[in-house]
Amino acid sequence: MSSLTTFEINEPLDMHLHLRDGDMLKLVGPLTSNTFTGALIMPNLVPPITTKEALLSYKDRIKEACKDDIFDPHVTLFFKDDYSYEFLENIKDDIIGIKLYPAGITTNSETGVSSMDVEVLRPTLESMSKLGIPFCVHGETNGFVMDREREFMPIYESIAQAFPDLKIIMEHITTKDAVELLEKYDNLHATVTLQHLLITLDDVAGGMLQPHLFCKPIAKRPEDRSALLNAALKAHPKLMFGSDSAPHPKHKKESCGCAAGVFTSPIALQVLVELFEEHNCLDNLNDFVSLNAQRVYNLKPKKKTIKLVKKDFVVPAIYEYKNENVVPMYANETLAWSIEKS
Amino acid sequence: MSSLTTFEINEPLDMHLHLRDGDMLKLVGPLTSNTFTGALIMPNLVPPITTKEALLSYKDRIKEACKDDIFDPHVTLFFKDDYSYEFLENIKDDIIGIKLYPAGITTNSETGVSSMDVEVLRPTLESMSKLGIPFCVHGETNGFVMDREREFMPIYESIAQAFPDLKIIMEHITTKDAVELLEKYDNLHATVTLQHLLITLDDVAGGMLQPHLFCKPIAKRPEDRSALLNAALKAHPKLMFGSDSAPHPKHKKESCGCAAGVFTSPIALQVLVELFEEHNCLDNLNDFVSLNAQRVYNLKPKKKTIKLVKKDFVVPAIYEYKNENVVPMYANETLAWSIEKS
Repeated sequence: MSSLTTFEINEPLDMHLHLRDGDMLKLVGPLTSNTFTGALIMPNLVPPITTKEALLSYKDRIKEACKDDIFDPHVTLFFKDDYSYEFLENIKDDIIGIKLYPAGITTNSETGVSSMDVEVLRPTLESMSKLGIPFCVHGETNGFVMDREREFMPIYESIAQAFPDLKIIMEHITTKDAVELLEKYDNLHATVTLQHLLITLDDVAGGMLQPHLFCKPIAKRPEDRSALLNAALKAHPKLMFGSDSAPHPKHKKESCGCAAGVFTSPIALQVLVELFEEHNCLDNLNDFVSLNAQRVYNLKPKKKTIKLVKKDFVVPAIYEYKNENVVPMYANETLAWSIEKS
Repeated sequence: MSSLTTFEINEPLDMHLHLRDGDMLKLVGPLTSNTFTGALIMPNLVPPITTKEALLSYKDRIKEACKDDIFDPHVTLFFKDDYSYEFLENIKDDIIGIKLYPAGITTNSETGVSSMDVEVLRPTLESMSKLGIPFCVHGETNGFVMDREREFMPIYESIAQAFPDLKIIMEHITTKDAVELLEKYDNLHATVTLQHLLITLDDVAGGMLQPHLFCKPIAKRPEDRSALLNAALKAHPKLMFGSDSAPHPKHKKESCGCAAGVFTSPIALQVLVELFEEHNCLDNLNDFVSLNAQRVYNLKPKKKTIKLVKKDFVVPAIYEYKNENVVPMYANETLAWSIEKS
């Protein structure tokens, strides 16, 4: 049996991405735009993106940093429960969705919502539903760390029921419970990261403590990872790839009180090809990494074909630009697939 | 209601302690011997303590480092499945017990046992049972990190059944399951650490990652902590205080691949008094921290009364000696009780 030596991905889309700002944006932006045709950019800057002016200005900075004519940064607004219908109607064509963070739940979410009560969210969500704006959610309660996502499922259910026309995206799902909930409501969709297809809490804290694998939501149990991986490998039509690639400087990861986030942008496609090949599911990879997102978000991405070759790729120990730096997942390790330079 | 301003602990015993060797021993030894009358010292040096010569020499080094005539270091042997009866008979009066580590399960356990099969352990355990040598066990499988202790319960059960006269100590228990198992077999006892009465996985990885709270077994769920705390507060007669205070240099804790262990020796008694006072259980503290161990191990410790006063104690940021250093739990924080200098 001959084994594959090349594989092409068409129009790869990363539907959950943190690009930060300033020099960090200049460092990490090209590491996504090199290989993806578009990405959904999260709005949790300091302060968060809550105005049209901030939104368009950020989009300009992203385009400038990414130096790629094809790459399309789909920007998002930071959810507030008091956005007016007129404001949302006016901004609707500039955004791909609105991202909700429960207050304090992750990096730069301090100004997030303090209540997930449907009645509190209703005014904004009704407007979003009427205007067809997708609702992206960081779905965690402030409960015990291993239970936070599972405890959020009833909240997803109440929103899905209350707003049947609202397109809801459960972001970076990490549990079997979330995979199962996908089947229950037509208007529920989800993204899943690279790392949650690969690791469990064992990899973070089962041997030595591994800060570069620490993220939120935290990696869960083996049965959770299996459920996520199975759904991804079969390219479940409601599941999209969203890396949640979240750069923090090395000194903030490798210190007391390490920040949450795994940086995967420069290795995501290579690892996905290896993973899907290993499970004989390469035929589904283009759906998982592009076509599902095109359908869920009604996207028509610009053409971009990434050719991968089966050739060792030694992941850099660190990526640097001026005073910024970031350590990628699998730093110093060797991957089986490389991206062919065009 | 008047509140207490002083409290005395008589003959405090730490029944699970890592003192290391060399300058680290010289640094941490006095931080236990200052306040405890005796301690059970774990044998996981490199190489581990497996001969009478190594044992007696280590005991001498501990006594020299501790500079305290009263302090009694009860040393232990590192379990091997091929100790002869004659060897154990000859060493019995020099040791307080024999400590078993499954291979690779924690710091310096590489040469631990590779099988927990009762038949493999039988020769040594039969000798220990006949000679009345207590069996101290790090009870974790190599399964998923949150399940390792629970999965070990059937192993404890099979050993407790096979050797009814063997005194078994489940070391540093972290789960409700282990607390419940105490009721089932007369020959099962346990130690519990300070940190497992106080923290859950939330404190380690629920906010930012906290390497100084990372230990093995890892802190578990809220219901586990509750079960441990309840058992300690009522001074469950089969439960002893064993700090598992485990010093690592600061640079090994605050780096990529942080080592497992929480250093609590210099704050343990102060925090225990605060905790037991908070729950109106101070009457039980002397049982938990001394009398239970005296009964389980048939100890007659030398007299030593530690007087605590309700006066702020700011925990040092770091303890240092020559090139060694270690960061204590609650570094830079203020505790409500202090140890009165004699």
